[in-house]
Amino acid sequence: MRVTVNRKAHFNAAHRLYRNDWSDKKNEAVFGKCNNPNFHGHNYELIVSVTGAIDPETGYVIDMKVLKDIIKSEVEDAFDHKNLNLDVPDFKDLNPTAENIVVVIYNKIKPKLKANLDLTITLYETPRNFVIYPGK
Amino acid sequence: MRVTVNRKAHFNAAHRLYRNDWSDKKNEAVFGKCNNPNFHGHNYELIVSVTGAIDPETGYVIDMKVLKDIIKSEVEDAFDHKNLNLDVPDFKDLNPTAENIVVVIYNKIKPKLKANLDLTITLYETPRNFVIYPGK
Amino acid sequence: MRVTVNRKAHFNAAHRLYRNDWSDKKNEAVFGKCNNPNFHGHNYELIVSVTGAIDPETGYVIDMKVLKDIIKSEVEDAFDHKNLNLDVPDFKDLNPTAENIVVVIYNKIKPKLKANLDLTITLYETPRNFVIYPGK
Amino acid sequence: MRVTVNRKAHFNAAHRLYRNDWSDKKNEAVFGKCNNPNFHGHNYELIVSVTGAIDPETGYVIDMKVLKDIIKSEVEDAFDHKNLNLDVPDFKDLNPTAENIVVVIYNKIKPKLKANLDLTITLYETPRNFVIYPGK
Amino acid sequence: MRVTVNRKAHFNAAHRLYRNDWSDKKNEAVFGKCNNPNFHGHNYELIVSVTGAIDPETGYVIDMKVLKDIIKSEVEDAFDHKNLNLDVPDFKDLNPTAENIVVVIYNKIKPKLKANLDLTITLYETPRNFVIYPGK
Amino acid sequence: MRVTVNRKAHFNAAHRLYRNDWSDKKNEAVFGKCNNPNFHGHNYELIVSVTGAIDPETGYVIDMKVLKDIIKSEVEDAFDHKNLNLDVPDFKDLNPTAENIVVVIYNKIKPKLKANLDLTITLYETPRNFVIYPGK
Repeated sequence: MRVTVNRKAHFNAAHRLYRNDWSDKKNEAVFGKCNNPNFHGHNYELIVSVTGAIDPETGYVIDMKVLKDIIKSEVEDAFDHKNLNLDVPDFKDLNPTAENIVVVIYNKIKPKLKANLDLTITLYETPRNFVIYPGK
Repeated sequence: MRVTVNRKAHFNAAHRLYRNDWSDKKNEAVFGKCNNPNFHGHNYELIVSVTGAIDPETGYVIDMKVLKDIIKSEVEDAFDHKNLNLDVPDFKDLNPTAENIVVVIYNKIKPKLKANLDLTITLYETPRNFVIYPGK
Repeated sequence: MRVTVNRKAHFNAAHRLYRNDWSDKKNEAVFGKCNNPNFHGHNYELIVSVTGAIDPETGYVIDMKVLKDIIKSEVEDAFDHKNLNLDVPDFKDLNPTAENIVVVIYNKIKPKLKANLDLTITLYETPRNFVIYPGK
Repeated sequence: MRVTVNRKAHFNAAHRLYRNDWSDKKNEAVFGKCNNPNFHGHNYELIVSVTGAIDPETGYVIDMKVLKDIIKSEVEDAFDHKNLNLDVPDFKDLNPTAENIVVVIYNKIKPKLKANLDLTITLYETPRNFVIYPGK
Repeated sequence: MRVTVNRKAHFNAAHRLYRNDWSDKKNEAVFGKCNNPNFHGHNYELIVSVTGAIDPETGYVIDMKVLKDIIKSEVEDAFDHKNLNLDVPDFKDLNPTAENIVVVIYNKIKPKLKANLDLTITLYETPRNFVIYPGK
Repeated sequence: MRVTVNRKAHFNAAHRLYRNDWSDKKNEAVFGKCNNPNFHGHNYELIVSVTGAIDPETGYVIDMKVLKDIIKSEVEDAFDHKNLNLDVPDFKDLNPTAENIVVVIYNKIKPKLKANLDLTITLYETPRNFVIYPGK
């Protein structure tokens, strides 16, 4: 009897799509307006989904307050009102596409959960574009 | 060619998180403000997801009117404008966490469906917290 | 140049519609299933709308952090995870219909704002029913 | 490290549920008000979900601009502001239920994607009814 | 102390934009793809907003059950799963633009309300386009 | 018979709250984390609301295609995937708070509309914070 518990969160950040080992021309050709050197930004909306057995004592898969605190310390404090390229070490040499961001978030939260819990991260870059990473 | 058909529904209910075999102190420590003895409440939003082959005659996996009636009799009539702890027998000895509620709903709807149909229940306790139970 | 600044917030609460000076029969006849003596509940979603001139110094009508704190102390701390009928003094002798709740919220927030700011409160009782009180 | 990239799109169309090899009486009995001979219609909201490995060069699973163009040419140009029964050849002999439409959309988009990408289509017929087809 | 009470509802319908006193060429030039002779359609989402004083007896501006019944008989029964041009007499000689539909709905509901209640109708033709008519 | 026609649009941008005639310390004290020198960003969601009489010929207040083109040229082309502080001349000496942005958008769109049409702009900076400017 495995249930998935989902918690929404959000952060606002600036970014640009860009590889520092490519020429400006190549960055422009591949990433178009997302490559604006002055950055643009998003309200990233996040869904953190934790799957596991229901604890028969509490009726919880995970205490939502615990999960909320993990999201705050690992994601919101690290990314909110930041420039992903300049302020967040994870993206020093990693292009902050939605795909790469969702994997980074997964890798930050997974070690904070008990080993028998599965994790999936969903990240909305805009209300119309979103990515999902189930960790495999 | 298996398709999942999803129907949204909703019910409004009061509840508290609480075990009657625990002391007040332990209930308070574990369930915090969700343990308020005078109850609090939610607009529960429900997604009932039925997966099966498309009937080549009708083009349906399941007639939505049939599914809507099952949801009404099994969930809405039973839970809407109720106190889950006091008015709903399923929670007489079961703590009405979102995880336990979603399993109860699954167990009420599953026997009403043809055996070759799979069922997943998604339950939003708030717009920011939701649980999913695929029945395994 | 008057702009309206809006901030969303939310609280979860139990309530019943009921007048203690009416017979059970009359309460039942008028309020139907909303009169369940064991209560039911809602996720109340709130929009607090403050209208005023833009301060040319800051570009703000009101500092959103200030508004957020007012909403927290006046509404969230007072109503969240509460039974409106039993736990909230404002509804001791006032039927907690959405209409009455929205007026109570207005009256709690208005005195905390500078006198030259107008206030409108919007309260969603469910995603399908909501009320608006502009204070006149 | 497989990530799912999702893109929302939409089209507005008229349709009726109806089989031309059935009598009017049988169509009426099975499809009810969805069988109105003068048609009714929907704002179909679509989620196209593409799963694959992240390209380490670009950080993309698929370039969203490429995906957007495929959706436009295969779905929006073909279905938007159309009568599905009368204007769209795919439904000449196929009842345009949500289930059948979602399979048709899958079959139009899949060949336009690289073979190592998986595809799932989600189609909202209304905000309360939706179907999902993962292609197996 | 006037409060606005809002109730959401919805109907699905086919329509085309078209004047029968214009040539096909002019209809095409003015209404573009909305003029498709085979029709297209929408999920119309409706917000009915009633403004008045709170009844001190009940705490209601209007009993939501009464309002829900008016919307059902005046709008949903008349428009849902219909072709607005062919099935609904109100649009026999009136082009069913969102603007004209919202005025028709206002004129159907207003006489059913007590004279001291104000009415505003909001009609979403799509999630991205909507119209509002406050009756003046 | 005046109806309001509303059109949604959106743009993604980076910004920081900051006055170049203030010290860093004062900027930090007043604008907090919104003052990050490396910028942060938002998905700005826009509602453009045009109020006027229904043209009895067309049934339109304004042709939605015309309105869509105005929004594209005046707002989307100017602001989307831009840094508001660095790339948009309107904010060269104006702090890009939501309040100031909504007034700038109003002032760009108003002259493009016929004089007898009223305009209101609503701007969501996040799904939880939004501002409204009716031009007076």
